[in-house]
Amino acid sequence: MNNAGGVRRKVVVVGGGFAGLYAAKSLANTEVDVVLVDRKNHHTFQPLLYQVATGVLGPHQIAAPLRAVLRKARNTHVLLQEVTGFDLDRRVVLLSEGELPYDYLIVAAGARHSYFGHDEWAAHAPGLKTLEDAVDIRARVLSAFERAEQAAFVSGEQPILNFAVIGGGPTGVELAGMLADIARRVVADEYHSIDTRKARVLLFEAADRILLVYPPELSASARRQLEELGVEVLTGTPVTAVEEGRIRVGEEWMPTAATIWATGVAASPLGRMLGGETDRAGRVAVAPDLSLPGRPEVFVIGDMASLKDAEGKVVPGLGAAAIQMGRTAASNILHDLQGNARTSFVYRDKGTMATIGKHRAIALIGKHQISGFIAWVLWGIVHVFLLIGFRSRLAVMREWMWAYFTERINGRLITTPGEVSRQPAQANHAAREKR
Amino acid sequence: MNNAGGVRRKVVVVGGGFAGLYAAKSLANTEVDVVLVDRKNHHTFQPLLYQVATGVLGPHQIAAPLRAVLRKARNTHVLLQEVTGFDLDRRVVLLSEGELPYDYLIVAAGARHSYFGHDEWAAHAPGLKTLEDAVDIRARVLSAFERAEQAAFVSGEQPILNFAVIGGGPTGVELAGMLADIARRVVADEYHSIDTRKARVLLFEAADRILLVYPPELSASARRQLEELGVEVLTGTPVTAVEEGRIRVGEEWMPTAATIWATGVAASPLGRMLGGETDRAGRVAVAPDLSLPGRPEVFVIGDMASLKDAEGKVVPGLGAAAIQMGRTAASNILHDLQGNARTSFVYRDKGTMATIGKHRAIALIGKHQISGFIAWVLWGIVHVFLLIGFRSRLAVMREWMWAYFTERINGRLITTPGEVSRQPAQANHAAREKR
Repeated sequence: MNNAGGVRRKVVVVGGGFAGLYAAKSLANTEVDVVLVDRKNHHTFQPLLYQVATGVLGPHQIAAPLRAVLRKARNTHVLLQEVTGFDLDRRVVLLSEGELPYDYLIVAAGARHSYFGHDEWAAHAPGLKTLEDAVDIRARVLSAFERAEQAAFVSGEQPILNFAVIGGGPTGVELAGMLADIARRVVADEYHSIDTRKARVLLFEAADRILLVYPPELSASARRQLEELGVEVLTGTPVTAVEEGRIRVGEEWMPTAATIWATGVAASPLGRMLGGETDRAGRVAVAPDLSLPGRPEVFVIGDMASLKDAEGKVVPGLGAAAIQMGRTAASNILHDLQGNARTSFVYRDKGTMATIGKHRAIALIGKHQISGFIAWVLWGIVHVFLLIGFRSRLAVMREWMWAYFTERINGRLITTPGEVSRQPAQANHAAREKR
Repeated sequence: MNNAGGVRRKVVVVGGGFAGLYAAKSLANTEVDVVLVDRKNHHTFQPLLYQVATGVLGPHQIAAPLRAVLRKARNTHVLLQEVTGFDLDRRVVLLSEGELPYDYLIVAAGARHSYFGHDEWAAHAPGLKTLEDAVDIRARVLSAFERAEQAAFVSGEQPILNFAVIGGGPTGVELAGMLADIARRVVADEYHSIDTRKARVLLFEAADRILLVYPPELSASARRQLEELGVEVLTGTPVTAVEEGRIRVGEEWMPTAATIWATGVAASPLGRMLGGETDRAGRVAVAPDLSLPGRPEVFVIGDMASLKDAEGKVVPGLGAAAIQMGRTAASNILHDLQGNARTSFVYRDKGTMATIGKHRAIALIGKHQISGFIAWVLWGIVHVFLLIGFRSRLAVMREWMWAYFTERINGRLITTPGEVSRQPAQANHAAREKR
């Protein structure tokens, strides 16, 4: 399996999201040695994060330990470490402790949401990118119902209960739909002092329609479906300030029981450390073979990369694109070693979809636009099959079927971090740094 | 359904553990109004906490939202609040915000572990009473493997990897057995720089045998079974100090990668606020009808109560006893209202058991002592049927069967609290207090 020279080349992959993980999987048990570095020990299946945030699934049902996924890759090491930068001339990745030399580097550190220069809003309106975010949002939403119940129990009056979702992209639409579903059906018989069906779910979008990446007909359909669920869809309505317990809409302040941030994209700051050209969101411009221009041994893939593919299509920031990029970067490395020419990346659009509460969804597959129940069934099938690891698929299917037939969801826990531990927030980071 | 006078009596239940929850369930849709107060929104099935701490089950598989369990109890309100004390003369429960009047009070706030006056050890050796504790321990154990892998990746040498479990009661035995099982089998093929089978799992017990509440033969059998799994059982060996990364055993310091506290009992401080007689662990002495002597309208039940039952048996601090006390306290209230005499509590010992890794357990059922595989099967059946809520049972059974047949466990996530939120640690408490 060794390459001609007998020296095994070192590939360092930064990030265990879709792009990095599929790059590592594609290099498993090949002629190179691989080190996958991530701050977390698990891959997170981001398309289902909103289901953890709303209590439908538990965190471990949409995550898989990276080591477990890669345990049969004997040429692969997983390192739980923080990457702090690069020295591209010396070909080393800088870690919070030490450094990692490479022959090839694949950078796939992803993106987060951006607060458009208002990072102080983060404390009042969490976004949804990690399991921790999802558990945080779940606690905020459930606590909002609890506070209302408590107030009503004392005063006998139903307090205002507004849930604000900021951003009408897929995440915002999915969150808003699920929140409305929960308030109207799931918890309606559990609160005996308030009527949870009177809770308002408001979806704010600055543009003139939601789901901008879809054709206008599907946007309109999604809007109708959201409104059927009771969501108030406010397009052309930017939120101009966020504080604890309220948001500013135009010149008016509106009280909110929970605010969720679902807009803006900011690529990992590692992108700018590569020294190449980046766009406003910090995404790195890459060559058709996914390498950093001028640095053929460095690939940038996934949500961090910005490119038009070989057919001129802008590659979207989707899991499916990230997976495809991971595979292309890996195969280009193997092409190099085998003396073959690299291939240019071509994005295969297998369709995009978004769910809207229970029973509803929209899907765009090629030119086909699908709405409603059939789109929702399609969505379920596709996402179960995309889930990493056979077992999670079964568990998630069972959980969904349970939720579907019983109208109950079971992950509704308000948990607060380790109450015994003195430094829970960064316990494992701290422990690592103390060594 | 109203009682003779037409005025519905108010029953306040403090605590949603086994005792409080079963008291509330027994009072569901009866002639009284019930308020169940808890700091958490969920019941935690404590006997399976160690499975969350070791990554076999996810948190939501052993927890049920209290509102969901009690949703059909139309006479019952669940309040997510902190109880700060009592005014027994005015018959009110004091809350962190406001107070709750009662006609009958059932106090079932449970117990935690005690550090024997060394609360500073808690930061270095968490105990296992809540879901948060379990997630904390899980992160510490997994991080220990990660740190070792990282050190070995750099140095090429296997570092010392000691897991110390302090306390040889059922929790300590279950944790130690499961940790050994994980190190020797579950993760053995996932770490490519260290041999996890060389990790040491040490179980420290100050007394001369583990599982003191069982007959000596079962203690000896449990010890043999633990040793077969590779656990080093150190009886007659008190741990005299705990610091970050090390413990003192006799006069020697031993380095530890993770230390878990599994000994000591301290009843909720609410016990001492009731003004009655308490034992050294803070448990409240109660009358045979489970009421506080001199306060027939106040019941103290579960791990907070200390009593010999009507047949002279000391009632143990077990879930089964707590459930039975909850039912007796509830029925004694109803007896009062119906003009009947109260009944004295009699503990029905249906047996006790402890698992030891995979395949192994001990059980004591009446005079019958059972060890090994049969005890383990019995344990599984009993615990699945005790789980609250039909759905959790199915989910847990499936997860166990998966783990059993595939040798894989799936809950192995290292999660750290909400990284976006500025004040994650007490987010929902803080939010509540800000209102």
